[in-house]
Amino acid sequence: MGVSRERWSKKFSEWFDDVLWKAEIYDYGRYPVKGCGVWLPYGFKLRKNIIELIRKLLDETGHEEVLFPILIPEDLLAKEAEHIRGFSGEVYWVTHGGTDELDVKLALRPTSETIISLYESYWLKSYKQLPKKYYQIVSIFRYETKATRPMIRVREVTTFKEAHTAHHSFEDAERQIVEALKIYMRFYDELGIPYIVSKRPDWDRFAGALYTIALDTLMPDGRAMQIGTVHLLGQNFSKAFEIRVQLEDESIDYVWQTSYGISERAVASIISVHGDDHGCTLPSNIAPVQVVIIPIWIKGREADINKYSKEVYEELKKGGLRVEVDERREIGPGAKFYEWEAKGVPVRVEIGAKEVDENKVTLVRRDTLERMVVKRDNVLDEVKSLVSNIDRSIRERAKKFMFEKIIRVDNVEDAKRIIAERSGIVELPWCGRASCGHRMEEVIEARTLGSPLPIIEKVDLSDAKCAICGREAKTIMRLSKTY
Amino acid sequence: MGVSRERWSKKFSEWFDDVLWKAEIYDYGRYPVKGCGVWLPYGFKLRKNIIELIRKLLDETGHEEVLFPILIPEDLLAKEAEHIRGFSGEVYWVTHGGTDELDVKLALRPTSETIISLYESYWLKSYKQLPKKYYQIVSIFRYETKATRPMIRVREVTTFKEAHTAHHSFEDAERQIVEALKIYMRFYDELGIPYIVSKRPDWDRFAGALYTIALDTLMPDGRAMQIGTVHLLGQNFSKAFEIRVQLEDESIDYVWQTSYGISERAVASIISVHGDDHGCTLPSNIAPVQVVIIPIWIKGREADINKYSKEVYEELKKGGLRVEVDERREIGPGAKFYEWEAKGVPVRVEIGAKEVDENKVTLVRRDTLERMVVKRDNVLDEVKSLVSNIDRSIRERAKKFMFEKIIRVDNVEDAKRIIAERSGIVELPWCGRASCGHRMEEVIEARTLGSPLPIIEKVDLSDAKCAICGREAKTIMRLSKTY
Repeated sequence: MGVSRERWSKKFSEWFDDVLWKAEIYDYGRYPVKGCGVWLPYGFKLRKNIIELIRKLLDETGHEEVLFPILIPEDLLAKEAEHIRGFSGEVYWVTHGGTDELDVKLALRPTSETIISLYESYWLKSYKQLPKKYYQIVSIFRYETKATRPMIRVREVTTFKEAHTAHHSFEDAERQIVEALKIYMRFYDELGIPYIVSKRPDWDRFAGALYTIALDTLMPDGRAMQIGTVHLLGQNFSKAFEIRVQLEDESIDYVWQTSYGISERAVASIISVHGDDHGCTLPSNIAPVQVVIIPIWIKGREADINKYSKEVYEELKKGGLRVEVDERREIGPGAKFYEWEAKGVPVRVEIGAKEVDENKVTLVRRDTLERMVVKRDNVLDEVKSLVSNIDRSIRERAKKFMFEKIIRVDNVEDAKRIIAERSGIVELPWCGRASCGHRMEEVIEARTLGSPLPIIEKVDLSDAKCAICGREAKTIMRLSKTY
Repeated sequence: MGVSRERWSKKFSEWFDDVLWKAEIYDYGRYPVKGCGVWLPYGFKLRKNIIELIRKLLDETGHEEVLFPILIPEDLLAKEAEHIRGFSGEVYWVTHGGTDELDVKLALRPTSETIISLYESYWLKSYKQLPKKYYQIVSIFRYETKATRPMIRVREVTTFKEAHTAHHSFEDAERQIVEALKIYMRFYDELGIPYIVSKRPDWDRFAGALYTIALDTLMPDGRAMQIGTVHLLGQNFSKAFEIRVQLEDESIDYVWQTSYGISERAVASIISVHGDDHGCTLPSNIAPVQVVIIPIWIKGREADINKYSKEVYEELKKGGLRVEVDERREIGPGAKFYEWEAKGVPVRVEIGAKEVDENKVTLVRRDTLERMVVKRDNVLDEVKSLVSNIDRSIRERAKKFMFEKIIRVDNVEDAKRIIAERSGIVELPWCGRASCGHRMEEVIEARTLGSPLPIIEKVDLSDAKCAICGREAKTIMRLSKTY
């Protein structure tokens, strides 16, 4: 491949900040409140396309979009005891309206299980209404005391898709967990983002859930990033909020709930996983611009070149592509290449006097920066095939990068060395005891991501012993440095 | 017309609350924070279609969508002195993160002139970048101490479209004011909502603006409701935030700004202005469902009726209509009519045994509830023509209702009597002095809406005298009870 991904993977954090700015995605770092940023027009379009993709997947599977208030009174947030214990340290509190002190402090929603449960207690009366699946796409707030990072760890998460479902039985709630995982897997598949699915250890579940399953991807610097979570809430919230329905046998019971979320980390993962030294490489399904045409102005030939560019533009547009012509005269082609490469546009079409004279166009693919000259008459087919070729190629490249960095070992020393030397994810046999899990974290100096799900992947344990206590391994534990 | 709009116009407020609930638009009144509500799935779709309409109009005219943070530090909000004076009494303040008291109080944005101006001071350097037009669609917050009312006066306005523009001259900013007005007028024209455009009196302009122009419509109870505002900010914010650019003559100057907003009152106006005793009547361009097919089940004929309904469904869908079949068996047709009428679906198609046997369909139009039987073969054309007929008809009905209630008088006694007896809007000759305007408000017991704009309508003053002081009238003043 023609593009170095060297510098990029070494100084990932600087690279990321730089690309957000250079590609005009997100203005971060100069807002007077730490952990807040501004979505710029191009970034906003990218974000919007990604939101539309998840929206489509949710709508298709019977999820209904709603919108709940941001302000949650303290007593409501505190109704589920474990939930408030988990969140209270990082909640922003509104205490005043104008000069009045409020009677009850209001939290800026850190997540919406509590308020949605309150309304489910009003709305749900019968098993006939179940399963019920709601979702909303909103801002959530976390008073982060750790180092913040654009899109990845922020105080206002401006893009949080949270789904909340209610069911008549434990089994149906678990079926929903599988549906949610399938939706998230398909979402990331369509974005070419590789992931692993792990059941988080018990000490890392969502506050108020029975268990949490997460999707993690691997960032260029070898650290894992959580990009989606799915929680079985059981009856914890339904009991706290009295969400009771009549079942088919006419008995009354609390509903069973799940919730699952994806944030703007989805955007961060696309930028990071597919990026290189030149900036982003965007999958075509969510790229705001799929093809950019750059007329190479030559004195005396402007009219020809312009006409030819416009014709190609019209043809690509009619062919269903999101295409733009960069007609600016005040900057040269080099500067334009630089800009559109940073923005991750999959295909660049260059049109100069030579192309016009020979009835051809020059195509440059974003992932490898390879150039090719094709016949004008075939331009639509060639571009379309190139676009899907790029999509496939970046997906495979990303997969290869990630799965090469997931290493199975049988002892903590190797695991520690691997994490220290090359980062990535290590997998160790584990007896399932919390004490051994915690010990792994300490020795390896990495965080536990949890264990594979049997419904998604088979784990071959073949007499493996827990890497800490030596007892029979029940599963494997994954560990990584994390974001 | 077959539908009574009597009860509806008399007890508007109760009617409105009832329809929001009955039509499953907005769950209001039982949230533990006053002035907050929940958008239900059907209401969310309606809201989304309305948002898409304004988004289209803004995108077409070169506005770029962005997203700024919700949290605004106190010192930033206070930078433009008049602005903070206007808003400080109704700002929600975040004072704590977890258990930490924050160093600087954070406001929940009441509007975004301040933060957008801050970033414009970073981004704008040259007249070549101008005009620059940004917009965002976000939640804003007002600590309302007055009586709240769903969508109309709330504490979290969940749907606020705010546009912010920057220009190289006063003239260009005023040109933008006209563009903004045209966009808003077109928006409401497409929704069939009548309006008047008035320059608000100086004592009622936006805090920090040179002047404010507003669109008002008339609610069924005869009270005016502001449904859009456009502000010339001049250089007030650009001076406070140091937004300076190089002009064409190489001098440096502060930019000239405008801002303009539309809120979820747009949704409230559609529901109210076009509604009747049965609920909503939605214009087809934003109706989540444009046509509902109700199979009238008859024992032994279910299969026929079902097949016929599906065929009609497919044909209407292929014809580009948003159509649904209500196949539910557990409730009868009457209950279905009631539900879909409340939801405002423009056309109902009834299909029973008779329709199948005679190869016909029965259509019922939402505005008048008139029934008509048409040939099956013409169904698509008939439905389409009916839909546009309804759109035209509700637009005209609304216009007639509003403009009959705008009365020009020459003295305050008549004005007072009209407002007391039949509400609506009165227009009085006015000398332009604030003291006379205030006096009108006191005597008539109504609020000043302001004066017509010469660019939009001609006002014939023909020697009229100010209704308060008897001096020569410079314009007219409009007054109404308001929301």
